[in-house]
Amino acid sequence: MALRMDAAALRVFLDQVFPQVADEFEIITLQEHYLEVALKVKNKHLRPGGTVSGPSIFALADVAAYLNVLSMIGPKALAVTTNCGIDFMRKPRANADLIAKSQLVKLGRSLAVTQCLIYSVGDCKPVARANLTYSLPPSGIQA
Amino acid sequence: MALRMDAAALRVFLDQVFPQVADEFEIITLQEHYLEVALKVKNKHLRPGGTVSGPSIFALADVAAYLNVLSMIGPKALAVTTNCGIDFMRKPRANADLIAKSQLVKLGRSLAVTQCLIYSVGDCKPVARANLTYSLPPSGIQA
Amino acid sequence: MALRMDAAALRVFLDQVFPQVADEFEIITLQEHYLEVALKVKNKHLRPGGTVSGPSIFALADVAAYLNVLSMIGPKALAVTTNCGIDFMRKPRANADLIAKSQLVKLGRSLAVTQCLIYSVGDCKPVARANLTYSLPPSGIQA
Amino acid sequence: MALRMDAAALRVFLDQVFPQVADEFEIITLQEHYLEVALKVKNKHLRPGGTVSGPSIFALADVAAYLNVLSMIGPKALAVTTNCGIDFMRKPRANADLIAKSQLVKLGRSLAVTQCLIYSVGDCKPVARANLTYSLPPSGIQA
Repeated sequence: MALRMDAAALRVFLDQVFPQVADEFEIITLQEHYLEVALKVKNKHLRPGGTVSGPSIFALADVAAYLNVLSMIGPKALAVTTNCGIDFMRKPRANADLIAKSQLVKLGRSLAVTQCLIYSVGDCKPVARANLTYSLPPSGIQA
Repeated sequence: MALRMDAAALRVFLDQVFPQVADEFEIITLQEHYLEVALKVKNKHLRPGGTVSGPSIFALADVAAYLNVLSMIGPKALAVTTNCGIDFMRKPRANADLIAKSQLVKLGRSLAVTQCLIYSVGDCKPVARANLTYSLPPSGIQA
Repeated sequence: MALRMDAAALRVFLDQVFPQVADEFEIITLQEHYLEVALKVKNKHLRPGGTVSGPSIFALADVAAYLNVLSMIGPKALAVTTNCGIDFMRKPRANADLIAKSQLVKLGRSLAVTQCLIYSVGDCKPVARANLTYSLPPSGIQA
Repeated sequence: MALRMDAAALRVFLDQVFPQVADEFEIITLQEHYLEVALKVKNKHLRPGGTVSGPSIFALADVAAYLNVLSMIGPKALAVTTNCGIDFMRKPRANADLIAKSQLVKLGRSLAVTQCLIYSVGDCKPVARANLTYSLPPSGIQA
């Protein structure tokens, strides 16, 4: 099954649909069923002590999963997150971007399942792992 | 087991430790093992269409769990979220605040477990449910 | 929305569809969106020390959720578990049955979401909490 | 960090601590932070239609995680599952064994986190994915 959107197309889509946050994310690598995306950490993502906040880590995991799914099914804004599980495992490095490495482990007709590991740039031990499920709109309906 | 912090003390703690986001949250009700907190929805929490973003819902669930735990153990900033599971069930109402109703279902020596339902104000069907686990610092260590 | 199956009908359905395990479970209480079911603990559910095994607790949570959903949608064997999250919080009592108290928090067209607390009989502190999501077959298809 | 138990030692431990179920599982591959274990599917694991039951899949995920953790910390029976998340993604093949491929993504002082994909033998698409967290006993205490 081939990619329906490449990194450039995902970039354009993100800018259009999530203009408030699109510039926080950078697509690093895209393959079939696999995507890496970075969160460019800014002040607003930080908690006291310089660590990246939980909601920011959630947002990164969600964007990684969403773009991974869209790359395979095309630009369907109606795909919605239905379930997310996250383990926060280590404190992110202060002042380092985060990278989510997302794997699409199921792409069904109505549900897609992804899992990812999230790293501080330059560190080989993950700061978090997450799994996300998306409910997919019926084929033919696109937004 | 009695409350170690009341709503006013939680309010002061939140303002000190999370000054960036503290004013987004309002404590509605506090009892032993039970807490309700509102997210005062602003533009920055919204996605196109007026719905509240996933990261904002995560943030609300996390704050509800955190304050619920702290009310029982006292002001220990070192309590950290280790696991979170969320089901996103319905689209939040546009332009309505969200309320998380959080239940503390385990308070052990090293782990605390909470679960919550999240509602749009004025709606009886929950928009999300979440469970969060916190790792607690050894007694005596406080930050 | 009214019940489509009462406790007796659920009992018959369970006996027919899961004959291997049906006699391990007893329906205690059934209301709209709420069900209590007991696991009658036998030797095969135990681990060394007399504690109930994890798979047995999972099985109870799954049966509770399944029957809760079926009571509202009717006898559709094709409803399948798609996601489950469990927190194991306390060691179950030796030689005591377990009771799951299951709440149906969403009943949509294609997904149903439940959550439950599980108790050892006679103990007010839960041994586990669980959330389960079911994928529902399109209306009209029944098995 | 080197292995503290090899496959043979894990085998002996499993036979001693879980004699009721030990013969259902076979260790296939063991490396640092990585383990593959098979569930040798028998009648008792099946549901009508020949598919493997949910509790059996849970049991496999749990054993895989447990052995993966023990291989690194030694034979500590007191390590207990505190959290588990599972996505059931595809129907297992009838009459085929299952293999869990488990990755240890965090080994901390008090918590270990694993994730696994589970496959029907001979199929490259996973039937399930799971994440499990273990609470570890303080060093020095062994059972």
